[in-house]
Parts: sequence; structure tokens; C-alpha cells
Amino acid sequence: MPSIPSREVRLAKRPVGTPHADDFDVGQNDAAEPGPGMVQVRNLWMSVDPYMRGRMYDRPSYVPPFQIGEALQGHAMGQVVASGDPGFAPGDIVSHMFGWREALTAPAVVFTKVDTQGAPIEAFLGILGMPGMTAYCGFLAIGKPKAGEVVFVSGAAGAVGSAVCQIAKIKGCTVIGTAGSDEKCDWLRSVGVDHAINYKTCGDLLTAVRAAAPKGIDIYFDNVGGEHLEVALELAKPFARFAECGMISQYNDTEARPGPANLIYVVGKSLTIQGFIVSNYASMQGEFVTDMANWIRDGKIKYEETIEHGIENAATAFVKLFSGGNTGKMLVKLS
Amino acid sequence: MPSIPSREVRLAKRPVGTPHADDFDVGQNDAAEPGPGMVQVRNLWMSVDPYMRGRMYDRPSYVPPFQIGEALQGHAMGQVVASGDPGFAPGDIVSHMFGWREALTAPAVVFTKVDTQGAPIEAFLGILGMPGMTAYCGFLAIGKPKAGEVVFVSGAAGAVGSAVCQIAKIKGCTVIGTAGSDEKCDWLRSVGVDHAINYKTCGDLLTAVRAAAPKGIDIYFDNVGGEHLEVALELAKPFARFAECGMISQYNDTEARPGPANLIYVVGKSLTIQGFIVSNYASMQGEFVTDMANWIRDGKIKYEETIEHGIENAATAFVKLFSGGNTGKMLVKLS
Repeated sequence: MPSIPSREVRLAKRPVGTPHADDFDVGQNDAAEPGPGMVQVRNLWMSVDPYMRGRMYDRPSYVPPFQIGEALQGHAMGQVVASGDPGFAPGDIVSHMFGWREALTAPAVVFTKVDTQGAPIEAFLGILGMPGMTAYCGFLAIGKPKAGEVVFVSGAAGAVGSAVCQIAKIKGCTVIGTAGSDEKCDWLRSVGVDHAINYKTCGDLLTAVRAAAPKGIDIYFDNVGGEHLEVALELAKPFARFAECGMISQYNDTEARPGPANLIYVVGKSLTIQGFIVSNYASMQGEFVTDMANWIRDGKIKYEETIEHGIENAATAFVKLFSGGNTGKMLVKLS
Repeated sequence: MPSIPSREVRLAKRPVGTPHADDFDVGQNDAAEPGPGMVQVRNLWMSVDPYMRGRMYDRPSYVPPFQIGEALQGHAMGQVVASGDPGFAPGDIVSHMFGWREALTAPAVVFTKVDTQGAPIEAFLGILGMPGMTAYCGFLAIGKPKAGEVVFVSGAAGAVGSAVCQIAKIKGCTVIGTAGSDEKCDWLRSVGVDHAINYKTCGDLLTAVRAAAPKGIDIYFDNVGGEHLEVALELAKPFARFAECGMISQYNDTEARPGPANLIYVVGKSLTIQGFIVSNYASMQGEFVTDMANWIRDGKIKYEETIEHGIENAATAFVKLFSGGNTGKMLVKLS
């Protein structure tokens, strides 16, 4: 069993502001023949996600920062080529955290065998994977939706946002979503979003969202931060819940940005603003997989993917996350 | 049964920025002889509280705004002089929401008879009343303290803050409190606060609080907002809880103030920032009264009061809340 040629994407320098393709470079790091306890995997798909931007800063966070000159990491789906571990056999489909490379050989413990049950492999990086579970857990555990409530979702056409919108519809809510193009808004309407707002062309965002939610909002699912968060505070009903999933509008800030000027509403309106990362809800994995697979099968949840091809385009795929280049899940097909 | 002469404090004009005594005036409004179903009460004590500042703005909130030319309202303790209702008899001690006046005659339904059980009447406006219950409910229901956790309290020498500090000590927490004078800090230490910080003289607040909580904070009880909130976000441990009780540093702002520039920590640290008003926790009234009465009796909770005398000094008492003029509960003795 020979080694497999593999290219990997490394952090060339720490991005300042919006990341550019030249913040990254591609190097060779072949996947060795696996010894005992090791597994050799060819990656089929890798994920690029907004949260990775945070790991490019050199600062403490819930995951350690990426190091300059070293390969990036992220969710990926691969196929076993050779195995020195009895738990894995050639042909097995596995999920793991070593994306950003074409192949790797690593201890068996880093891989999880996946029975796709007929679903597309790449769905396990999106609607059936981390983004889908982020939407499911954050919205249900923090949003605590009740039928008839009004839900506002920013970044609604993204992998997480679009899942939140559709789960909210399943739960009987009225859904307002924002996105950055008319095409994305059209797609959101096609999957049942009641009010899709193009935040780039709608004029004053507060006015536009208020028109869609004249009585206010009960739940805000935040992927964006910034002005969207301020609008949500303004329109929040008493006891509204804010699921703080991300603030992509702020990830590339080079200076600290003032918070919302109306944060004081948190007191008078008895709001709950709760941040989370998906791993907080590991205990919900089972119900997530069951519910989501059923919803997809029943046509209640639809998902879009935006696909780049080849490891040499992985950095470009990542950069596009910050310019609205994706509808639904942004993926890189590697093999 | 004659009418009782009574003066009342009216809102003369809406304060701009920090309130001044001349934003208020005193007028005559005698308390009539009570007809059937009515009760005539002489007020003994009235409360001034920071939240009243919000009602002086003309804007929608959880309570309607005060009207210019009309008497203010607020918690008070009074004694029945005459009663046209079988539920009340002369001499009864009552609590009600019609402070800011010396006497009143009103329907029986607005009064609640109080069995003081030997406690000072005025304690029912402070440690045994709304401020004490605010501290108890907000800290326990939102803070969810566990022994060994680190609790940061702003406005720690106020009526609410000082109760929070001592409840936190009862629950086995380490307590850091800020106040605006050395005298207040000395008092906080005398009631068990581990680290009392004079925020006016400590230099950089973040540095001072970090020195007291080198491993970070688990719970922040916010009475102040502004810089204190930003410091708390900076020092919050993962899964920290913020009980947002008030933001007194911002109540007199004439322009919207930018929120904390580090609010994005709410996501990565999985923080919960929850605002509340005490009436959300009406169901906890019974356990509050029992616990607090026991703690006071056992010497585990001590309280201070700052007392002004006479209805003509009520506005002054209120204004002093915003210049640090009170340690513990600010009260006005009326009779």
C-alpha cells in the first residue's frame, strides 16, 4: 500500500480584514502508508465555514488558533483507502476534522465511520452535519419556538440560516429572513419563508423588517451581528429570545466595533441573548439526525449547495463566504 | 372623618440628562374622606428607585410614562386612617404603589395589608420589598449560582447590589463588587464581599477586576451597564450568566450610547445575557419572603438605608441616586 500524493492548504499569513486568497498557500504533504492503528483516507469533500475566520486570529478562543505555515483544519468527508486498524476497511466513508487536504493518514480515533443511508455524502457537511445541527439545536434549545410566533433570521440563505428558516416553518412560525441578493430571496420564498428581505437593496433595514413584523419578533436567530442585531433589539417583543450563532458582519473587523446602541432594551423587555456553539448540544445529536432525515425525506426541508472544485480553489471558496458568494452550504469537491 | 391635608410631588418637566430638583414640583392634593370601598391612608415611607428615571421619558416601556403635571408613583408604606372597606381598619399597615404623596384615598384594591412581624416598616421598601426580591430572583433564577463560582456585581452598594452580594456569599461564591466611594467599599467588605473596588479611583476598571478574578467570572449581576458590562464580557468564563437588572450609568444619556465593543464574546464564550424585571418572578414571592426573613434574623444579610425626610425632599432623594448619594436603600420618611 503506497503513500497517496496529497496537497494541503496552509495559512500563509494572518488575514487583515477581509481574507484574500493570497493569505493561503498550497503545499505537498503526502499521506503515508498506514501502520498499525492508522488509517489512510482520501478526502472527497471539505467544508468551509465562517467560524474558521476566528481561528485565523492569534487569540484564545473555544478552539486554538491556526498556525502560520501549517495546514488548516475543518470538517471533511473521506473514503478509506487503506487501514491498519480493524475498525476501518477500504471503501468506508468517514467524517473527520482534517479538511483542507486531499488525503491524510492518521490514528483511527480521529475518524468516524458514516452510514450515509443513501443520502449524498456531502450532505453530512451541511444539512445533515454541523451546520444543520447548529440550526436545529440553537433554534430549538434557545429559541424555544411556539406555533404562531414571529422568527427573524439573518444570513437566512446560508447553510445554517436556511435550515433555521425551514425548521421555524415546520414549528408553525412566521419567518422573516434577510439575504444579500434577489436570487437568494427568491429561493428563500420558494422554501416557505414568509418575508425575504434583500438587505442590500431594501433601504433602511429597520423599516423593512418592521413592515414584515409590525407586532415585533419573538425569536431572533443571529448569524450576522452589527446592524441586524440592533434591528432585532428594536423590534423584539418582551421575553424574546436571541440565539447568537455568529456575527459574520464583524469577523473581518480590524478594530473593535461598538455594540448595538439599544442594548439597554435587554432589561426593559426581559430579553434573553444567548450565544452558543454546536458542541454545547452534543446530547441532541440523536434527535437531530432522526428529525432532519425525516424532514428531508418528507420534502419539508430543502437545501442548496455552492460547490468549488479542487484543493487549489479551497481558499477561494472560503473567501467567498464573506462576499455572499454562496447560497446554502459552501463546499469544496476534492475527489 | 375629615380629609387629610396632603402634598404630592409632580413631574414639572421631563428631565434632560441628569435629573434636577427643579424638574419636579410639590402641589396640594388632600386625601378625601373615604366613601364605600375606599381607604384613606397616610404614607409613612416612600421609595425612590433608579427605574423611575425610565418613566420620566415619554416612550413606551413596560410601565407607562409619567405625565407632566401629574403626581409621580412608586412603592410606599402607609397606615390606614379611615376605611370604607371591610378589609381594612384604622392602624393597618399597607404597601402600595402611590408614593410621592403624604396621603391618599383610593379603592381598597390598590392596597396590600402587611404583617410586619416585628420588622421595621421601611424594610418592606428595601431588603424585604421590591429591591430585595429583585436581587433574590434575578441572581438565583438567572445567575444559577453554584458554590465556588465567581460573581461580579456592579452598583454593589445599592439596595439591590448589596443584597446580591450577600446572597452570593450565602451560596458559597466569591464576590467582587464595585461602588463609587471608599466608604461604600468598606461597608461591602464588612458584610463579606471578597473584593470591593472603588471604580472611581481604581484606575483601569478591567485591570482592577481582572486582578480580583484572575480566572474570570461565572456570573455578572449588572446594575450599571456601560464600561462595567464591557469589563464583564471581557472577563466572562465560558457559559457565564449575566443577570441584566439595570444600566444606571446610561439612564440619563441624552444620545444613544454605543453598546459594548466586545459583545461578540457572547457567541464564542456561549454566554447568556438575560434581562428581567422583578414582576417576571412573582411566583418566587413566597420563597423570597421566607429565605430573606430567615437570613436577616440569622445575621447573614445586613442592609443599609439612606434616609431623607419630608415630601419636600423627595425629589432631592431621587436625584441623589444618580450621584452616588445613597448606600443601600434610598428612602424618604414622610410621617
